[in-house]
Amino acid sequence: MHTLKKDFGSDNQAGISSEILDFLSKINTNHCHGYGDDPITEKAITLLKSSFGDNAECFFTLNGTGTNTTALNAITRSYHSILCAETAHINTDECGALEKITGNKIIPIPSVNGKISTSQVETYLTSIGNPHKVQPKVISISQPTELGTLYQKEEIEALAKLAHQHNMYLHIDGARLSNAAVALNLSFKELTADCGVDIVSFGGTKNGMMIGEVIISFIQEANEELPYLRKQNNQLLSKMRFISGPFIPFLEQNLWYRNAQKANQMAQYLYSKIKDHPQINVIYPVDTNALFVKLPPEIVAPLQEAFFFYPWNIKENTYRWMTCFDTTEKDIDLFYAKIEELSKKITK
Amino acid sequence: MHTLKKDFGSDNQAGISSEILDFLSKINTNHCHGYGDDPITEKAITLLKSSFGDNAECFFTLNGTGTNTTALNAITRSYHSILCAETAHINTDECGALEKITGNKIIPIPSVNGKISTSQVETYLTSIGNPHKVQPKVISISQPTELGTLYQKEEIEALAKLAHQHNMYLHIDGARLSNAAVALNLSFKELTADCGVDIVSFGGTKNGMMIGEVIISFIQEANEELPYLRKQNNQLLSKMRFISGPFIPFLEQNLWYRNAQKANQMAQYLYSKIKDHPQINVIYPVDTNALFVKLPPEIVAPLQEAFFFYPWNIKENTYRWMTCFDTTEKDIDLFYAKIEELSKKITK
Amino acid sequence: MHTLKKDFGSDNQAGISSEILDFLSKINTNHCHGYGDDPITEKAITLLKSSFGDNAECFFTLNGTGTNTTALNAITRSYHSILCAETAHINTDECGALEKITGNKIIPIPSVNGKISTSQVETYLTSIGNPHKVQPKVISISQPTELGTLYQKEEIEALAKLAHQHNMYLHIDGARLSNAAVALNLSFKELTADCGVDIVSFGGTKNGMMIGEVIISFIQEANEELPYLRKQNNQLLSKMRFISGPFIPFLEQNLWYRNAQKANQMAQYLYSKIKDHPQINVIYPVDTNALFVKLPPEIVAPLQEAFFFYPWNIKENTYRWMTCFDTTEKDIDLFYAKIEELSKKITK
Amino acid sequence: MHTLKKDFGSDNQAGISSEILDFLSKINTNHCHGYGDDPITEKAITLLKSSFGDNAECFFTLNGTGTNTTALNAITRSYHSILCAETAHINTDECGALEKITGNKIIPIPSVNGKISTSQVETYLTSIGNPHKVQPKVISISQPTELGTLYQKEEIEALAKLAHQHNMYLHIDGARLSNAAVALNLSFKELTADCGVDIVSFGGTKNGMMIGEVIISFIQEANEELPYLRKQNNQLLSKMRFISGPFIPFLEQNLWYRNAQKANQMAQYLYSKIKDHPQINVIYPVDTNALFVKLPPEIVAPLQEAFFFYPWNIKENTYRWMTCFDTTEKDIDLFYAKIEELSKKITK
Repeated sequence: MHTLKKDFGSDNQAGISSEILDFLSKINTNHCHGYGDDPITEKAITLLKSSFGDNAECFFTLNGTGTNTTALNAITRSYHSILCAETAHINTDECGALEKITGNKIIPIPSVNGKISTSQVETYLTSIGNPHKVQPKVISISQPTELGTLYQKEEIEALAKLAHQHNMYLHIDGARLSNAAVALNLSFKELTADCGVDIVSFGGTKNGMMIGEVIISFIQEANEELPYLRKQNNQLLSKMRFISGPFIPFLEQNLWYRNAQKANQMAQYLYSKIKDHPQINVIYPVDTNALFVKLPPEIVAPLQEAFFFYPWNIKENTYRWMTCFDTTEKDIDLFYAKIEELSKKITK
Repeated sequence: MHTLKKDFGSDNQAGISSEILDFLSKINTNHCHGYGDDPITEKAITLLKSSFGDNAECFFTLNGTGTNTTALNAITRSYHSILCAETAHINTDECGALEKITGNKIIPIPSVNGKISTSQVETYLTSIGNPHKVQPKVISISQPTELGTLYQKEEIEALAKLAHQHNMYLHIDGARLSNAAVALNLSFKELTADCGVDIVSFGGTKNGMMIGEVIISFIQEANEELPYLRKQNNQLLSKMRFISGPFIPFLEQNLWYRNAQKANQMAQYLYSKIKDHPQINVIYPVDTNALFVKLPPEIVAPLQEAFFFYPWNIKENTYRWMTCFDTTEKDIDLFYAKIEELSKKITK
Repeated sequence: MHTLKKDFGSDNQAGISSEILDFLSKINTNHCHGYGDDPITEKAITLLKSSFGDNAECFFTLNGTGTNTTALNAITRSYHSILCAETAHINTDECGALEKITGNKIIPIPSVNGKISTSQVETYLTSIGNPHKVQPKVISISQPTELGTLYQKEEIEALAKLAHQHNMYLHIDGARLSNAAVALNLSFKELTADCGVDIVSFGGTKNGMMIGEVIISFIQEANEELPYLRKQNNQLLSKMRFISGPFIPFLEQNLWYRNAQKANQMAQYLYSKIKDHPQINVIYPVDTNALFVKLPPEIVAPLQEAFFFYPWNIKENTYRWMTCFDTTEKDIDLFYAKIEELSKKITK
Repeated sequence: MHTLKKDFGSDNQAGISSEILDFLSKINTNHCHGYGDDPITEKAITLLKSSFGDNAECFFTLNGTGTNTTALNAITRSYHSILCAETAHINTDECGALEKITGNKIIPIPSVNGKISTSQVETYLTSIGNPHKVQPKVISISQPTELGTLYQKEEIEALAKLAHQHNMYLHIDGARLSNAAVALNLSFKELTADCGVDIVSFGGTKNGMMIGEVIISFIQEANEELPYLRKQNNQLLSKMRFISGPFIPFLEQNLWYRNAQKANQMAQYLYSKIKDHPQINVIYPVDTNALFVKLPPEIVAPLQEAFFFYPWNIKENTYRWMTCFDTTEKDIDLFYAKIEELSKKITK
C-alpha cells in the first residue's frame, strides 16, 4: 500500500532524508575500491569513532537482522545463550535468524515495559559449567526498547557490570539508538562505551537513511572475526561507500539528532493531545517516538483506513503509533481530528 | 583507494547510473508499507515477470552472497551437494557462506574456462542413495562465468535436462546476467526459463545499480519458503521500495541493456587493441566485459599504479581487466597508451 | 561417584539388564555388514513394526539428544518453531542442540505439571504466513513428561488433531515411553500411531539398555530424509547390530514391559510410604517412575549423602526421586528408613 | 547380510573382542552417576593420559563422524577451512556432517596415496586476511590414511610445525590409530603429542570395541569448550561408563596392541601371498590392515559372493580388502584359494 499522506505505521515506512540522497549524488563521481577500502568509508568510520569513542571499531552492514545476528555471532559460541526481554526484536521478529545463524538459544525474560533489570537477569545465571545447559554469554537490550521505553544510563551501567562479573557481554540493539540519545540528552559514547557496553547494533534506516546499519564493537577478539562473519552472514556489500557514506551527513550535519528529535517531539505532541482522552489509554511511557494505546474497538478500522498503523495485541485492543523524522504537526493534527471525529460517534 | 580516473578493477567499483539515483529521488515522496508490500515493489515485480516469464516469482535481496545462499537454501536440504565449476563465486569468494547457512557441501568441478559440461557433471552423479555421501541436488553455473565466458543456450538446456533427469535443479548465478543476455542477444526469459533453468540469482549491482539483487524462482516449493528464508538469512530490507524500485528504470528504460552493452563493447574495444600485442596474451575468450591477460612482470606494478586492476594468478602472471557501464573509449585509449609506454621500455 | 547401593538419581544411573548383555554375547559371533544392513537389525525392525504398526519406519540412533534433534530435523525447515512445555528436555537439557542442528526456535509453553493442552497450544498458532515470525510446525510432547506425569490417550489424540489441522506434526519424546505404556496399559501402537502421532523418539537406555534409541517415523517424507540426517547429525554407528540387537530381547522377551513395570511399581511403593508423611509433600502426580517431593531443608544433605538424588528447584526445596528397573523393595525400605531417621531428628 | 565366515569388507564388520564384553559384564554391578562422573570413566581417562601424555584431555564420544566434527568444531570458527587429503573420511564419507555442524569449508588436496605433504599444504595457505575467502585453520590428516598408508613421525612433525607457524592446528583422524602405532612401533604419545599434534580423534570401534571413540585434546581452549560441544553435537551418552569402560581393558590389557597387530599381520600375510600374483596388482603400500588391489574383472563377482569386500573405484577395477583383529591365517588361506581357483579359470 502506498499512502500519499503520512501514516503512523513505523519509522521505516518513511522515505529518505534529502541530505542522504544529496550525499549519494555527491559521492557518485568516481571509481572506488569495493568492500570498504575507500576514502568515503574511511571518513565515515572516523566520524563514528568521534561519536562512539576511539576504541570503537565499525563494520557496516545491510539490515537490522543481519547486524544483530553478526554482532552476536562475533561474541558467542553455539552453546551460549542470549538473555533478553521477551519483547526483544531478536526474539520476536527475526524469524529465528539468530538460532539459525549462530546456533544460540535465546532466553526470553518476561518484561512489562520492554526492559529487563539486573535482578531479573541474575535469576537466569544458573547451571554455569553444566554441559546439559546452554551457557549465558550475552545480555542483549534494545535501546530504546521495542515499546519505545528507555534504559537510564545507570541501568545500562548496572547491566554491563553484571555481565562482566559473569564473563558475559552486554549488547545493545540500537536500531533507534538516535532516538534514545536525543531523549536522554546523551552522546552515543555516553550511552554505550561509557556505560561499559561491549557491542552495539547501530541503525540508520529507521532514522532517515535508505539502508545502512553498522556494528560498533569495543571487543578486540570480535574485531578480528567480524570481517569474516559479516561476509559469511551475507552482510557485506561491494559498493560499500554507498552504505557507509550516508553516515557522513548523518553525523557531520547532525542529521541523526535533528531527525530523531523531530520524531520524538512529534510523539510528545501526539501524546499531549491524547493523554487525557477519555476513551484512549496510553499504556507505556512515551520516552521516544512510539505511543502504545488501548483503543475503543469501534474506531480502529476507520482510523486505520485513514492512517495506517499496526496492532500490538489485538485481543487487548492495543495498537502502536510511531512518528518519524518527517512527521509534522499538521499530520498529527489531521490524525487527531480523525480520532476525535470517530470517538465522538461512539459516545453518542 | 579513491581514483579520479576509471580503473579496471571490477564492475562493482563503478558508481551508480544516474537513472537509478534519479529514480530514488522520484519515489522518495511518501510513506509506504515496508518489506515489499508497496506499489513500487509490485511494479518492479511486474516488469521482472515481463522479462523472465509469468511464472517467475521475484524475491528482492541485498547482496550477491545472500542471493546465492538464499536461492540455494530454498532448493536443498543440509545433506545435499551443489555441483559447480571450481572457479564459481560460491566456491571461492563467499567465505564459506553456503556451507554455514545451508550446511551444503560444494563439489567443485575442474574447469579450464569457468564452464562445466554435462559429461563432466555426470561423472559426479554417483553414490545416490548412499547415506555416507552428500547427495547431488543442484548444478550451479555462473552466466557469464567468473572468467567472463559464456554458456550457449544449448549448453544450458543440456545441463537443465541432465539436472531434471536426476531429480536435481539448475541454478544460475547471474550477478552479470545482463552482460550475458546482451552478448548472446537473448532475452532473460530465453536465457533462463526457456532453457529449463529453475532458479536465478539476478544481479543489478555490477551493472549500474547501487545495491539490488533478486532471486528469480520458477519452483513452486521454493516460492513458499523464500519469504522466510530471505528473512532468516539476513536479506530482507524494511525500506524495500528503494531496493526493488531501481529495477523499474533498469528494465523499463532498458538501462540493463545499455549498461551491459557498453561494458561489453568496451571490453571488445580493449581486446581489439591488445589482441595482437606481442608481449600480452589474452587467455580466455572475451565474451562479455572481462579480459584475462598474461602480462610481462615488469609492467604490472607501474600499470596497476596508473590504473588499478586485480591479479588473477600471480604465479602465472595473469591479471583481470574489467570494463563497466561507464568505461569510455577515452579511458581505454589512456590505459592502452600506458601499456604501450611500459611495454616499450622492456623491449629496449 | 560410584555407589555400591542403589540411588534415586536417575534411571540412567542404573546398569544394563542381564538379558541385554547376554544378547550382545549371543550375537557376537560373525562378521556382518555395517550400518544396519544386517539380519539382526532387520529382525529388530520387524519387532518394532509389530509394536508400533506396519507403517512405522525405524532408524536406530545413539543418544536421546541425537534422536530428538534428528527426528525434528526431518520434519522441519530452519524457520519453523517447535512448541513444547517449558520443562521439555529439548528446551532445558540439550545444551541448545536443537537450535544448532536444525536452526529451529523452540517456543516454551508454561506448564504446571509438564503437560501442554490444545487450548494452550492454540494461543501460539499466530502470525502464520508472516515472514518476520518463526512458523509453528511441530508440537513436541514428552510421554511421560519430565515430571513423570502422563498424557491420556485422548489428550494425545486431541493434540495430533490440532497439529494436523494446522499442517503441523506431533512429536513424542519417548525417552521413557515404556513407563508410559505400562502405566496406561496401552500398547506402543495405541499410544502413538493410533493417536495420530507422527514421529517418536523411542528410548531404551533409561529402561535397562546400555545404549540405544530409535526414531519411529510415520511420515513418508521424513523416512526418505532420515538416513542422511542420521548420518549428518552424528547418529549412525558402524557396528549397528549391537545397537539395534538389544531391541530384540527388549521386545521379544517383554523386557521393556517388565523393566518399566518394576520401576513404576517401585515408585508407587515409595509413594505409598511417603504420601502421608507430615514433613514431605509429593508435588506432582506419581504416574510413572518419578516422585517430585518438597523436603525439609535439614534432611536433604544427609539423605543425599546416603542415597544420591537430584535437586529439582533448590529455592523451593523440591527434589526428584527416580526408581529404576533394578530398584527393589529393600532399596526403598532402606531409603525410607533413612528418611524416617532424619525427619525424626528435626521434629524433636 | 550376515556371513558365517569372515569377510574382508571392513574392520568394522567384525564383532567385539571378548575382553570388551567381559569387561562390560564386570562393571555392570552398581548404580553410577551418568555422563562421565564415575570412577570407571576416571580410570579410563587415567589410562589414556598414560598413553597420550599427562596434558591429554579426554572426551568420550559415540561415533567416528561425531568425534571428527566435535574435535574440529572445538578448534574452528565457521569461516575457517580444513585442509585435508581429498580421500579423507571427513571429506568423502560423512555426508557433509562437518559442513553442517561447524559451517567449515573442507579444502580437499589431491593425493595419490592418501597423504598430504607440507609443500602441498603450503600452496593452499593463501588469501590470509581476505574476508572473501575461508581462512585455513586446521590441517587434518588420517593416520593411517583411508588407503591404509602411514605418515612417518617426521612427516607429522613437519605438518605440525607448518600448522603452528601459520596459527593453525594439526588434527589426526585416528579411527585406526592403533594400527598405525603398531606398524610404526611408536607409542600413542610418540605418534601424537611428541610430534606436536593438537587434537586427535581416537577410535576403538574398528579395533575390537563395540562402540567407543574419544577426543584427545592438547589444547586448553578446546578443553573448555568440548563438554558443551560434545553435548550439543549429540555425542554425550548418559551411561557413559559403558563407553569409557572398554578403554580400560583396551589399554590395560594391551588389547589395542594385540588386535591391531593381528590385523596388520594378516594384511601382510595376505600381501605375501598376493604380491607376485600375475593378474592382481596391489596399488598402494600395505602399511597397516588394508590392501587395495586391481583385479581382473571376471573374478570380482564370484569372489565377492564367497567373501564380501568393497569396490574402491569400479571404473578402474580396484577393490579394498581389509583384515581385522579376528582374521585368521585360515581365513586368508581360504580366501586365497578362492582367488586362485577363480584366476585359473580366466587364464585358460
